[in-house]
Amino acid sequence: MSRVGRQTFVYDHPPRIAARTSIVGPKEGKGPLSDQFDILLDDDLLGMKSWELAEGEMVRRAVDHTLKQANLSADAVQAMISGDLNNQIIASSFAARALGIPFFGQYGACSTFVQSLVLGGALLSGGFLENAICCASSHFCTAERQFRMPLEMGTQRPPQASWTSTACGCALLTANAQPQDLKVCSGTVGRVVDQQIKDANHMGAAMAPAVYDTIVAHLEDTGRTANDYDLIATGDLGWIGRNLLMELFKRGGVDMPDGKLIDCGNSLFSQEQDPHAGGSGCGCVAAVSCGWLMRRVESGELRRILIAGSGAMLSPTSTLQGETIPSISYAVCIEGGA
Amino acid sequence: MSRVGRQTFVYDHPPRIAARTSIVGPKEGKGPLSDQFDILLDDDLLGMKSWELAEGEMVRRAVDHTLKQANLSADAVQAMISGDLNNQIIASSFAARALGIPFFGQYGACSTFVQSLVLGGALLSGGFLENAICCASSHFCTAERQFRMPLEMGTQRPPQASWTSTACGCALLTANAQPQDLKVCSGTVGRVVDQQIKDANHMGAAMAPAVYDTIVAHLEDTGRTANDYDLIATGDLGWIGRNLLMELFKRGGVDMPDGKLIDCGNSLFSQEQDPHAGGSGCGCVAAVSCGWLMRRVESGELRRILIAGSGAMLSPTSTLQGETIPSISYAVCIEGGA
Repeated sequence: MSRVGRQTFVYDHPPRIAARTSIVGPKEGKGPLSDQFDILLDDDLLGMKSWELAEGEMVRRAVDHTLKQANLSADAVQAMISGDLNNQIIASSFAARALGIPFFGQYGACSTFVQSLVLGGALLSGGFLENAICCASSHFCTAERQFRMPLEMGTQRPPQASWTSTACGCALLTANAQPQDLKVCSGTVGRVVDQQIKDANHMGAAMAPAVYDTIVAHLEDTGRTANDYDLIATGDLGWIGRNLLMELFKRGGVDMPDGKLIDCGNSLFSQEQDPHAGGSGCGCVAAVSCGWLMRRVESGELRRILIAGSGAMLSPTSTLQGETIPSISYAVCIEGGA
Repeated sequence: MSRVGRQTFVYDHPPRIAARTSIVGPKEGKGPLSDQFDILLDDDLLGMKSWELAEGEMVRRAVDHTLKQANLSADAVQAMISGDLNNQIIASSFAARALGIPFFGQYGACSTFVQSLVLGGALLSGGFLENAICCASSHFCTAERQFRMPLEMGTQRPPQASWTSTACGCALLTANAQPQDLKVCSGTVGRVVDQQIKDANHMGAAMAPAVYDTIVAHLEDTGRTANDYDLIATGDLGWIGRNLLMELFKRGGVDMPDGKLIDCGNSLFSQEQDPHAGGSGCGCVAAVSCGWLMRRVESGELRRILIAGSGAMLSPTSTLQGETIPSISYAVCIEGGA
């Protein structure tokens, strides 16, 4: 069975993660997970002349590093499934131009990395691809310029705002498994959920109901409970959003032990680094997953995890027009190899 | 075999197109194809208070009309694979919010409709979905505001500029085939190609090399020639871009009979309507395909067609930064039913 319930794909031939790369920027590299990433940038411009070009270069380096780890050339990869927060996803498409890999541009806001794993998992399990790059990135400076205020203005951020991370995560899915490689076992496709939050600085509140909707769908579709997972990681709700999600589970009668659920945005930064509500951005869940979380599964510390990425599908235009914030979440189940 | 060559998916279980809807705006509805569309809008605001909301409402109506044609409820559809030109694809995500269908947000600029068919075809053929909505939209007024100048300025457009169409096309792919339904037989995933065009008004020139790259890959992967197709439709190169594409075929030694290749953007408008270089926008190839082209296959006039959608992956930011225009093209093969 390739699909169970309405929203969940179960991969009959679970793709393996042959290699992966996590890159984080200077602030992220000083956080509590600093020794869990592959590449720590000391210059968030990466030697480029604009932040947008820098983000594209970060994606290109992440893919390049991943291919080198797997000892593969770009020619051996049939698809790059990737996106970012920039208008018209220029970080991913500029990287895809440099790499020459057939490209599926995705937009799921900060859920994009998990969206790409869910799609990539299906395309590999279905025999359409042999190797696929699943990737997402974000950059604090491109996101602030685009969604909020030019950094040069030095605008004060409200306490409920999250800090868009400068980060990129990239996973190479392969049908040519090595027994020790991590498995992508199932994926749940989210619905767009909107609980009428209008504050574009309060994304944890906007996204928590979407994450609730998707995790509940995943558990119902698969007939599992939270206890079937060693860890459930959201990305990224931040401290406020995670509390709201726990409240939703409580109200909905869903058993979710408090220690079971962590948030990537809360893990990337310490509160002393003053990210306000926590880390966010496509790159946060991508880098924390490809770095810290997958390492813990690989080491055997965790056997099976669920990563629930979430995205706020707002635009600066919809915010200016007074619209509420539609949100979405995708979930993917990762298990250890043999 | 689910994939042939590097870039082409061949659908072992070709999904069928159970229903489809084409919607066009007032100007498009006065063009040469006016009797080929399902819904002609007489108000490009659709009763909404902004063009962005109007575009989302157009998408919602297209999906709703398609589901009614197929006598299906939204609950019976497991995925909406859709995108548009708006920053953060708000037309599609706002429609997905209204519909409640699990959502895969896509961004391939004007190639998005074909990208969604290529992905949807794989997800259905692989058994992951039973019913999927593949959709894309564009709106002249949202696109001008975002990519070029506010309409209120009355800026003169250069002759090489195309006219972003107000249009939407939506196809319901299903695994529950009726013998007469059209088949989605194969799809080719494009690479990002950039021949250093910098003029954001000259998109036909930027995209023609990407279309060339994808059509050549499709023919090589499938071992076919242009003569295996009754028609090859590009979308949307416009008059200048189509001439450049024919020149590329000639230089590349690819046999492409002149009458075989049409462009959706050249078909949507007459030159008397003064669209300058031709129609463009995600909605153009989507509506022309779901209206005119698929009707011709359904009637038996055409037996097998190839639709090659193309997108210019620029953003207003990349244009202001002086970057060249990366482009992409996806191709999908549609055949008549029994």
